[in-house]
Amino acid sequence: MHILVTNDDGVYAPGLLALAQTLRKIGKVSILAPDQNWSASGHVKTMHRPLRVKQVVLADGSQALASDGAPSDCVALALLGLIEEKIDLVVSGINPNANIGHDVTYSGTVTAAMEAVINGIPGIAVSLDSPENHHAHLDYQPAANLASQITHHVLQKPLPTGVLLNVNVPYLPLDKIKGIKITRQGLRVYRDSLDKRVDPRGRPYYWIGGEAPTAIPEEGTDYGAIYAGYVSITPLQLDLTAWNVISELESRNWA
Amino acid sequence: MHILVTNDDGVYAPGLLALAQTLRKIGKVSILAPDQNWSASGHVKTMHRPLRVKQVVLADGSQALASDGAPSDCVALALLGLIEEKIDLVVSGINPNANIGHDVTYSGTVTAAMEAVINGIPGIAVSLDSPENHHAHLDYQPAANLASQITHHVLQKPLPTGVLLNVNVPYLPLDKIKGIKITRQGLRVYRDSLDKRVDPRGRPYYWIGGEAPTAIPEEGTDYGAIYAGYVSITPLQLDLTAWNVISELESRNWA
Repeated sequence: MHILVTNDDGVYAPGLLALAQTLRKIGKVSILAPDQNWSASGHVKTMHRPLRVKQVVLADGSQALASDGAPSDCVALALLGLIEEKIDLVVSGINPNANIGHDVTYSGTVTAAMEAVINGIPGIAVSLDSPENHHAHLDYQPAANLASQITHHVLQKPLPTGVLLNVNVPYLPLDKIKGIKITRQGLRVYRDSLDKRVDPRGRPYYWIGGEAPTAIPEEGTDYGAIYAGYVSITPLQLDLTAWNVISELESRNWA
Repeated sequence: MHILVTNDDGVYAPGLLALAQTLRKIGKVSILAPDQNWSASGHVKTMHRPLRVKQVVLADGSQALASDGAPSDCVALALLGLIEEKIDLVVSGINPNANIGHDVTYSGTVTAAMEAVINGIPGIAVSLDSPENHHAHLDYQPAANLASQITHHVLQKPLPTGVLLNVNVPYLPLDKIKGIKITRQGLRVYRDSLDKRVDPRGRPYYWIGGEAPTAIPEEGTDYGAIYAGYVSITPLQLDLTAWNVISELESRNWA
């Protein structure tokens, strides 16, 4: 089996290296990832400029490809033929922060898996719910092992068509993780605020700042699972239709 | 009522001007839109760099704000306080091409409306199913009138919480449009291909190219409606959970 690994933190991120090294035990791994950080970059298809791809060497001496496109561009490039050998599955990550609730449409990690599904192959996004400001020394190995286990399972027993998996792993040693839960998308609580500053030439500029988002640890949800020490697997689909309001909207007189 | 208008084609796009001019008949309009084209840019939250905002004058002499952020950044900036007066609703568009099927997670037009809903106010995305390569001379007025009618309706009778409207208008004169249909998200058919070229210095670069996407004109869907000459209103939600596969995935042995 041939697995494409990508991420949104850039090709040199330690989370990608841990993931790729661990997945090599279950299949052939190719890496095509962005050459820079694309966090919260959304689902991108770069059509207004051409993309460059270069060969790089990772910290363990392995080969990888890096592109100046977004994570979803990397997946598109690979599946459109830049990587010649047929790809069976895309795994994206490991992101150092959880991707839960509304994060899923912003997240480069998740949108890379969306791009796989749109192109007809399975996609798995893997994120670690790590503590804040601690990213330089993270232990990605438990999450990499779990990602490999889930990937192996999906290669054995395919996912339903059109479904991607959004996997979030609590930041715990493997023997403290209580198990795996299938969850629904929960509710993020963003705490963004506008931070207006003035540059040395007297002109204003704006940071989207504020405190890190929290989430509601409701049972049955992505965050509820990782909050309780479980791995969360949320199956996501690309049909965003709000089915439950269609008949109410149809009953309205729009004319 | 105070309406924020934005788009993904840039603040000077004629589709935005027609929309803003028409919406001024039903409420106060503020404009904060990107200073460049962000088509297929996805749902972005720019946190790695500060954003600039400048005042510009549109072709009709009206004032607008332009930012170097994405469409969703523009909405976030406005709602976080860059525009001081309370905003009641966001309308995004008018995009010169339809946003149907899988387009919705790529589309800057649609993700701007998503950002409104995440911030607790209604969002409406408006797109015109115009003929290819004809954008310089498009007549946006029928779509602007319909967008204004739908916006007026939503201001009178609020949408269910967490729902945005994805509106697509066929490229027809007003008197040829058959009515409004509430639809579900349909199926896009992308026809992307990889176009590899070599620069003057002998280095390869890649365009994501290919023919324009088509779609399946199935009855009940977004594209089915516009194909048959109706305005399509698709209610979209931000919960992407693939509910129908949860019990099957729960029955699997993931350990």
